[in-house]
Amino acid sequence: MPTTRPDFFDIRMRGFRDRAEVEDVIALIDTRVQPLAAEDIAVPDANGRVMAEDVRSEAAVPGFDRAAMDGYAVRGEETFGATPYNPLELRIVGESMPGRPFAGGVATGQAVRIMTGAPIPSGADAVLPVEVAQEDAGRLRVCEPISPGRNVGRRGEDVEPGCVMLAARRMLRPQDLGLLASVGVATVGVIRRPRVEILITGDELLPVGAKPEGCRIVDSNSVMLAALVRRDGGDPRVGLPLPDRRELLREAMRHSTADVLLVSGGSSVGKEDHAPGLLSELGELALHGVALRPASPAGVGFLESRPVFLLPGNPVSCLCAYDLFAGRAIRRLGGRCPELPYRRVQVPLAAKIASAVGRVDYVRVRIRAGQAEPLAVSGASLLSTTTVADGFVLVPRDSEGYPPGAMVTVYRYDDPYE
Amino acid sequence: MPTTRPDFFDIRMRGFRDRAEVEDVIALIDTRVQPLAAEDIAVPDANGRVMAEDVRSEAAVPGFDRAAMDGYAVRGEETFGATPYNPLELRIVGESMPGRPFAGGVATGQAVRIMTGAPIPSGADAVLPVEVAQEDAGRLRVCEPISPGRNVGRRGEDVEPGCVMLAARRMLRPQDLGLLASVGVATVGVIRRPRVEILITGDELLPVGAKPEGCRIVDSNSVMLAALVRRDGGDPRVGLPLPDRRELLREAMRHSTADVLLVSGGSSVGKEDHAPGLLSELGELALHGVALRPASPAGVGFLESRPVFLLPGNPVSCLCAYDLFAGRAIRRLGGRCPELPYRRVQVPLAAKIASAVGRVDYVRVRIRAGQAEPLAVSGASLLSTTTVADGFVLVPRDSEGYPPGAMVTVYRYDDPYE
Repeated sequence: MPTTRPDFFDIRMRGFRDRAEVEDVIALIDTRVQPLAAEDIAVPDANGRVMAEDVRSEAAVPGFDRAAMDGYAVRGEETFGATPYNPLELRIVGESMPGRPFAGGVATGQAVRIMTGAPIPSGADAVLPVEVAQEDAGRLRVCEPISPGRNVGRRGEDVEPGCVMLAARRMLRPQDLGLLASVGVATVGVIRRPRVEILITGDELLPVGAKPEGCRIVDSNSVMLAALVRRDGGDPRVGLPLPDRRELLREAMRHSTADVLLVSGGSSVGKEDHAPGLLSELGELALHGVALRPASPAGVGFLESRPVFLLPGNPVSCLCAYDLFAGRAIRRLGGRCPELPYRRVQVPLAAKIASAVGRVDYVRVRIRAGQAEPLAVSGASLLSTTTVADGFVLVPRDSEGYPPGAMVTVYRYDDPYE
Repeated sequence: MPTTRPDFFDIRMRGFRDRAEVEDVIALIDTRVQPLAAEDIAVPDANGRVMAEDVRSEAAVPGFDRAAMDGYAVRGEETFGATPYNPLELRIVGESMPGRPFAGGVATGQAVRIMTGAPIPSGADAVLPVEVAQEDAGRLRVCEPISPGRNVGRRGEDVEPGCVMLAARRMLRPQDLGLLASVGVATVGVIRRPRVEILITGDELLPVGAKPEGCRIVDSNSVMLAALVRRDGGDPRVGLPLPDRRELLREAMRHSTADVLLVSGGSSVGKEDHAPGLLSELGELALHGVALRPASPAGVGFLESRPVFLLPGNPVSCLCAYDLFAGRAIRRLGGRCPELPYRRVQVPLAAKIASAVGRVDYVRVRIRAGQAEPLAVSGASLLSTTTVADGFVLVPRDSEGYPPGAMVTVYRYDDPYE
């Protein structure tokens, strides 16, 4: 049941009393957000999904000894001593094809034509490659010896029955799907994808696809957030922007049944910032205001146990708060690694970064000639800084920043030309 | 028109005369395969797509000077000298909300309540944050000076009209979509996704989802290839496995209209390996047999100008030939970077890798304690080696391998726990 918190402090037009530390927001998410339940899906649809349980093989792969090359199944010992000057002659008694094995066996002096993947007939123990044998009118001239076992794939050599092939929490790769299919697994238990509802608020917003006109701007956060949610394994749903009317936002929040609710805009201390108060009324506003630039108006709460993120309307702040907080919850719900899904590189700074002690700074940087150039410490609204940027640096709360030449960790956005 | 090549040398049951070098296969692909044409798609659907042309902004973003914080629009110069002991008082004459600007101007002695993103009224040039002002009965007490321009986002500071915002060949990121939406771009020209038809051949194959039985094994390449094609930006189509009947494969190849055709199985020198001969008959078999372990039976050709890849049926060989050759063509057709889409890391070898001069070796490795452990140089059929592996090393043709401790480049498969 949603409960109203009588201690809710309405900060509209007063300012934040106290900002939460970034690490406390992360700790809150890690404590309160756990992976969703499992669902079964067909193996061909499972790429990139996270396994909910270990998968053991019931079958051996291969299920029989089989040829690893095209050639002739022979008794290896018989070929010892064969040379081009002293070739061995064998009689070809049949052929073994993949799916159509030779019914008989290979006796002394005999060979069976065999294709890669076909069962080795009984009696034979090696496959002579086509390149070192000549076939003529049912006779095979063998010019090289071959050891028993050579070019034979043994039963169970790929997968032994009963073993754990792939373990829980693995994010499935293309070759994993192949392995699952090969042992006869038709469906696999994976963690359900989090459903994420994206509510965009703001009287000034026109829907995506419209042209900006006068003092109205076009919603850009919904498309960005939907793409980020998909990247993190979630299933986003986006509606049209809502005007800044408390009762509309209230109804939208109250009716949401998604696993995660993202509210973009209306999260700050402005007069029409209804989201924090509504979250407090309908559920729990766990924290509001974070010592993080440029995403300080972010908030986190819960509707029943479902996490809700109040994201600033400014696009860069929105990206920052999404990646650090909302994305983490979505990644956790989906059973993924919760850490920032960006590659980290260590590079020297081309110019100093100044930061205030007491807050974390999210600083976009461009990497040029192996150095990180800070783009804009402020300018939360400048989405273009994140498209020009190659990534960002997080300056910790206890740091005043870094001098030129300092080695910093850059979280690289996906390389747009890779 | 398909042409029959009279010089086609039928290698079935004879062996390859001559194997192409890996670098020649790559050069052939790079010469013959160029990006597809553009198509327009809606911005929300464009994440991860490759832009076909530069996009210029028609609009300025923002289109007007706007508040970068919640607070009060003032004339900055007037506040000079204001302190808590000597506060300035201004009269609040109205408010400017996002999408609902204040109709008048700000004269001397006046202020306008303003929310982040709202237009700055004429006369005002700075936004005083709510935290440093007190509002009471239409009067504003200002306790700190603020410089003109402070907390104001200038028209065009994010995007100036006419500039190239995002350049051709860029793979669009979530924030890029936001930027496009914000300037009123509804659709974007992107390179068409390559349609890839996957033909799986083999009498021994059961469809995905079946249990292996007797000498019949389950097709695993189709699910693996479909996932790899999607990773590389292609749109895969997979049918049921085809039996090894020449006329069936011939019809399937002849009727394919996909941008790329992948034929898995039947590509080697076995008696029922029809694909090379058919490709030669229906189009062009440009090369067949590559100095590459474990994918030597791979072939490349064209049906009209559409590339066709003959991939070995053995799953590891299939993965190797896909990544090095077919994937490269698909990435090129889609306008992506053609190189292997794996992260490269330099690590020392835990044990030696032996390789024969004259061929490239694709060696799966596991990374343990910062060292690369080779898993299996042979064992093309062992798909489990690629699920256990963290990546692979490519040993160049002129190398006999590497001793323990040698630094090697590992191409990392996606980390299944990241």
